[in-house]
Amino acid sequence: MDIRNEIRAQDIEQFYSRALECTSASRAAIQAALVSGFEVRRKPDKSFVTSVDLRVEEQLRALIQQHFPDHGIIGEEYPPTKPQAPFQWIMDPIDGTEDFVHRLPTFGTMLGLYYRGAPVVGVIDHPVLDLRVSAAFGLGTYKNTERIRLVDIEPAAMDGSERVMIPARANFIKHADEGRLFDAVTRAHPNHRIYRTCFTHACAAIGAADATIDYGNPVWDFAATRILIEEAGGKFVTVREMDVPKLGKVYGSVFGKPRLVEKLVALFNAPA
Amino acid sequence: MDIRNEIRAQDIEQFYSRALECTSASRAAIQAALVSGFEVRRKPDKSFVTSVDLRVEEQLRALIQQHFPDHGIIGEEYPPTKPQAPFQWIMDPIDGTEDFVHRLPTFGTMLGLYYRGAPVVGVIDHPVLDLRVSAAFGLGTYKNTERIRLVDIEPAAMDGSERVMIPARANFIKHADEGRLFDAVTRAHPNHRIYRTCFTHACAAIGAADATIDYGNPVWDFAATRILIEEAGGKFVTVREMDVPKLGKVYGSVFGKPRLVEKLVALFNAPA
Repeated sequence: MDIRNEIRAQDIEQFYSRALECTSASRAAIQAALVSGFEVRRKPDKSFVTSVDLRVEEQLRALIQQHFPDHGIIGEEYPPTKPQAPFQWIMDPIDGTEDFVHRLPTFGTMLGLYYRGAPVVGVIDHPVLDLRVSAAFGLGTYKNTERIRLVDIEPAAMDGSERVMIPARANFIKHADEGRLFDAVTRAHPNHRIYRTCFTHACAAIGAADATIDYGNPVWDFAATRILIEEAGGKFVTVREMDVPKLGKVYGSVFGKPRLVEKLVALFNAPA
Repeated sequence: MDIRNEIRAQDIEQFYSRALECTSASRAAIQAALVSGFEVRRKPDKSFVTSVDLRVEEQLRALIQQHFPDHGIIGEEYPPTKPQAPFQWIMDPIDGTEDFVHRLPTFGTMLGLYYRGAPVVGVIDHPVLDLRVSAAFGLGTYKNTERIRLVDIEPAAMDGSERVMIPARANFIKHADEGRLFDAVTRAHPNHRIYRTCFTHACAAIGAADATIDYGNPVWDFAATRILIEEAGGKFVTVREMDVPKLGKVYGSVFGKPRLVEKLVALFNAPA
């Protein structure tokens, strides 16, 4: 029995509708900031943060608290709210801040709602690309307003031409030295792309990539992904879970068309 | 003495202006095709070609022949025209056809004019991104209408956080087995991105990347690049030139902020 069946259908629809309102608001704020300009600084780990990351997370938190005062919230820029609540919103206001700073259009906003750990609603919004990928439990995955149904990859098409989106080598070495995994993946799947943002998650959900790997990231970097993939008919597998001092848990996941996901998962499970 | 000083300034301005007209026309044709749909097939080498690649190259060839009947033309989809002419237009109507087919927005049109082998005019146009990067000899490089002047990277900033755009491993193995170079580059520069289109060239020209490597590609895949980089104050180095049966010459190049380009070139010149 799927725990999400405890939630009333009309509640799921309302959560979904509010999530879409949230990312419409964040999109407007981000587009305005791209015109007016914004402040950029480096965090102690040298990653970028801007005044827009902070403002958008504040905006999303306020909207969620207004509509769902009993729900918890986990985000990249502020401490968790109501960590014991059964419903938890997880967000990354700007995933790909370095790209946002350099005006590369592939950054995006991720927002997801979980019920006792199971994903209920997910949205990835790309303001510059006018691309919103969204899903809710039982309601399917949408690319803007178009319903997406992934068709599995044929075994014969996994001949090196399969399209795999992967993280940069940086992701495989920042928390543990797993550079050998990067090397193994790039050798086995030479037709890869590296965008370093949640655009790779959106691409897997809509079938523009056959599969995507993400690696070495905290929970908010996967906030929307699992439900987007599963509601489109794809497969999502967590291949790593590591505890990192000060940051907490980081994850590695593989997702997209089922046959290719299974093949990629095997690479991660192979002996070193 | 630079051979391009033989060309009258008013001619350079006219060539530049016509090149911009050409890419405005190709942009309109590509945008229309994205709405109306198009045919896709695979070439014998399994790469994609669409009815739009063919139509846009025909359109660009017709415009150039109309304005400059004495000039030669080299393009990806049709045989060369007037190969002995001193002025040669080089084009790739859609660079990143695989991405175009999957509606990834990073494909683009490349167009360049050469005089006795020296680049005079270059344009990279990204229809979906509304991004046009253009340059002409002596006139500077422009991101849409904004003049670009690259600032060199500081030696201390080459600490692993430098932003390098690179080709996929596929490019290093399709004509010769140089996978070791892919491994060397990704290890030395962990903060890399792989887009597999001329968007990486545009990013180097406007400073959104600190440097870009492209590798294993014919001349039309670099049609516009050298002049875009040099007029912005960057450095362009050809690190490989190989003869490939049936395809002809393919090249490897490194370009962008001078200090980082020098460092990358050293990787290519290191003993195997």
